[in-house]
Amino acid sequence: MPNDLFIYSTPVFARHLRILDDIVGIAERHASERNIDATALILARLYPDMFPFTGQVRAACGTAQRATARMLGLEPSESADNDKTFEDMHERIRGTVAFVSGFTEADFAGADQRTVSFPTANGSTPLTSRAYLTRFALPNFYFHLATAYDILRHNGVPLGKRDYLRIDSEM
Amino acid sequence: MPNDLFIYSTPVFARHLRILDDIVGIAERHASERNIDATALILARLYPDMFPFTGQVRAACGTAQRATARMLGLEPSESADNDKTFEDMHERIRGTVAFVSGFTEADFAGADQRTVSFPTANGSTPLTSRAYLTRFALPNFYFHLATAYDILRHNGVPLGKRDYLRIDSEM
Repeated sequence: MPNDLFIYSTPVFARHLRILDDIVGIAERHASERNIDATALILARLYPDMFPFTGQVRAACGTAQRATARMLGLEPSESADNDKTFEDMHERIRGTVAFVSGFTEADFAGADQRTVSFPTANGSTPLTSRAYLTRFALPNFYFHLATAYDILRHNGVPLGKRDYLRIDSEM
Repeated sequence: MPNDLFIYSTPVFARHLRILDDIVGIAERHASERNIDATALILARLYPDMFPFTGQVRAACGTAQRATARMLGLEPSESADNDKTFEDMHERIRGTVAFVSGFTEADFAGADQRTVSFPTANGSTPLTSRAYLTRFALPNFYFHLATAYDILRHNGVPLGKRDYLRIDSEM
């Protein structure tokens, strides 16, 4: 069997972050074509205490970056919350794709034996890498992707499920 | 190595559908406590051509049911779009949990050799079971879970990320 911790993490993160990069591009073109102030989309949110669009993009990238680092026993890095433009978001996404794409299946050898100590409301909960990936990293990654999409749809950006799934694409 | 097509599908679907069942319960109690017409939440949507809350729940259940069936070489079933109450949604979710929980790791032996023919905008695209799970089933499942959550948050239902992730819970 192939190494599941590799197959279900970095190639998945890279593929769906490239999809997110294209979705950011669709929002950018829509704002430009309709003379919409970019900030109206970038800072849009579904409820006052939820992250705005830019925060959803940042959280998706941060989840991919930290999940990859934790499963590989590396120190996850924190990044500044300072994205202000579509270009800032493209840069963040592309930097994250480059980071997660830098590891191969061989790097994940033994990752299934690793325990991830994870900060939660109850302190720090140690989980196996596999439990961490299935219970936190993947659901959280897709949460922020879907919510980024939902914010744009709620604001009338012309998107469809095909833009989120891209089944036919080898990207 | 364990069978990844099992580990990343039916136990994940069952766990997160139980979480969704609890989220539906939170919405139900909120409506009751605040004297909110249940329909105001059940039929809420983020944009006129998106599914309402009940449709997001149905799509999450349908994705879990059809993905499980397709990977096991069984005929996926279609179910009526007729949920009108919170109780209907609880029943649908619990029925789906029972279905996906009925299979064991042994049932997934050889599933990685199976090809899934998948209806798409371009006709039917054959994918390996593993590509189908990573490119379609999981991102689509979490899309509908997150969007169900987003609809409730947008409508003021008191929910937080802890209700969506439940890291500390063995459920």
